[in-house]
Amino acid sequence: MTPDDSLTGSEKEGLYKAIFSRRDVRSHFVGREIPDDVLLRILNAAHHAPSVGFSQPWNFVLIKDRTIRQKVKESFVRERDRSIAMLDGNEQRQKQYTSLKLEGIMESAINVCVTYDPTRFGPFVLGRTSIEETGVYSVACAIQNLWLAARAEGVGVGWVSILANEDLGKILAIPEHVRPVAYLCLGYVSGFAEKPDLERAGWLPRMGLADVVCYEQWGVHQSEPWSALRAAIGRMGEGKREDNM
Amino acid sequence: MTPDDSLTGSEKEGLYKAIFSRRDVRSHFVGREIPDDVLLRILNAAHHAPSVGFSQPWNFVLIKDRTIRQKVKESFVRERDRSIAMLDGNEQRQKQYTSLKLEGIMESAINVCVTYDPTRFGPFVLGRTSIEETGVYSVACAIQNLWLAARAEGVGVGWVSILANEDLGKILAIPEHVRPVAYLCLGYVSGFAEKPDLERAGWLPRMGLADVVCYEQWGVHQSEPWSALRAAIGRMGEGKREDNM
Repeated sequence: MTPDDSLTGSEKEGLYKAIFSRRDVRSHFVGREIPDDVLLRILNAAHHAPSVGFSQPWNFVLIKDRTIRQKVKESFVRERDRSIAMLDGNEQRQKQYTSLKLEGIMESAINVCVTYDPTRFGPFVLGRTSIEETGVYSVACAIQNLWLAARAEGVGVGWVSILANEDLGKILAIPEHVRPVAYLCLGYVSGFAEKPDLERAGWLPRMGLADVVCYEQWGVHQSEPWSALRAAIGRMGEGKREDNM
Repeated sequence: MTPDDSLTGSEKEGLYKAIFSRRDVRSHFVGREIPDDVLLRILNAAHHAPSVGFSQPWNFVLIKDRTIRQKVKESFVRERDRSIAMLDGNEQRQKQYTSLKLEGIMESAINVCVTYDPTRFGPFVLGRTSIEETGVYSVACAIQNLWLAARAEGVGVGWVSILANEDLGKILAIPEHVRPVAYLCLGYVSGFAEKPDLERAGWLPRMGLADVVCYEQWGVHQSEPWSALRAAIGRMGEGKREDNM
C-alpha cells in the first residue's frame, strides 16, 4: 500500500489540464510522425485502464497503410451521406452538418481501431455476470486513458464514429466475436481549440453541471443534505467557469 | 487555438501517476467526508468528457442516504450469490471468489450512480447515426475522467458491477428510457494498493502490452513498418516495466 496520497499541486494541475484541454480533433493535423516512445506511453496508458474482473478485453490495431485507410474513408463518406439524408426537411441543420469537418483519417499520422473481445479470459468474467455491458465499458475507459495521454504528449485524437462496423470488420479482418469500439485518428496538431468544435460552431451548447447532477434519486435537483454542494455548483455556473475549463 | 503544446514534465507526470496508480477500491475506506470543492472538481472533470455529437448524455446521482444504500447492498448480495452459483463445479474458484471484498457501498463516503440518457438533445445526435452505442461509450469516458480526478484528489473509487440494473432503476427512480451505467463508491482511503486487487490475489495476470497491440489488421502481431515500435514494446515487457507502473 502506498500512503493516503493525493497528487502534488502541479501534478494535479497536469491531470486537469489534460482533461479540460482535450479535444476531438478532425483538422489541423501536421505531417510529423509520432515517435515510438511517445506512442508506447500512450498505448501503455490505455492498457492500464480499469477492466471488469481484470479481463483487459481490449486490442489496439495500429494502422499506417494508406490503402486500408482509404477503404475506411469510403465507409465514412457513405455513412455521412446517409446521416445527412436523415436531416431531410431541416435544411439549416443539413447545411451546418455539411460544413463540419468530421474526420482526419488520411491526414493524421496513424489510425487506431480499438476493439472489445468478450471471450478474453472468459466465459466466466468476475463482475460481468449481472451486467454484460461492463465489458465494453472497460474498453471505453481505455480509450479515455489513451486520449488523455495523447493530449499530455501534444498529440491530437479524433474519434470517427460515422462508420459502419461491418465495413471495419471486413477491412481490418476483425473476427465475428470481436466488436470494434472506436476508430481513432492520431497525430500532432498545430493547436488545440479552446472549445469543442461543435460548441464553437453553435451545434449544441455545453450544459451546466447543475443540470446533470441529481441528489439521492434520478431527476431530483434539490435535497437538503446536499444544499451546500448545490450552492457551490450554482456559483460555478454563474461564473461560467466550466466553459473556460 | 492554443499553440501546439504538450504538458510540462511534472504536469505529464501527474497524468501518468493518476492513470497508473488509480485503483478499484473496495476496502480501506476511512470515515472522512469529501469536501464540496473536491467533489465539485471531480464531477466537473467527469462532465468534461468527450461525447458523441457533444450530446453530454450523462447524469450523476449522488447518494448519501443509508436506506437507499442498504437496498443497493441487498441487490449486490443477491447478484453475488447468483454469480458464485455459476462457479458450481469449480470449488477452488468459488472459494477464491468468496474471499474477495467486492464493494464498499456502506463504508464509502458517498455513492454515485452514473446514467445514460439516449434522448438527450435527440433524436438526431450527430455521429450516433451509424453506431448507436457511441452514446453509452461517452458515459464510460466520463466515468474514467471521474475516476482519475478522484485519484488525483486522494479519493478512492470502487465500481460495483455485481448489481441488477432493474433493482437500481427502482431504487433510484430511474426512468425507463435511461440506462444505469455505473454504480460507484467514493471515499478517502488509508492507501492505494500497488497492484489491482485481482492481480495481487492471483485471480488473473496482467497481459503484456505486446499481446494487445496489433498492426494494420486485427490479430497481426508482426509488421515490417512497425518493427521498431514492436521492439520497443518487447523491451518494456522484458523489464516488466508495465507491472510497476
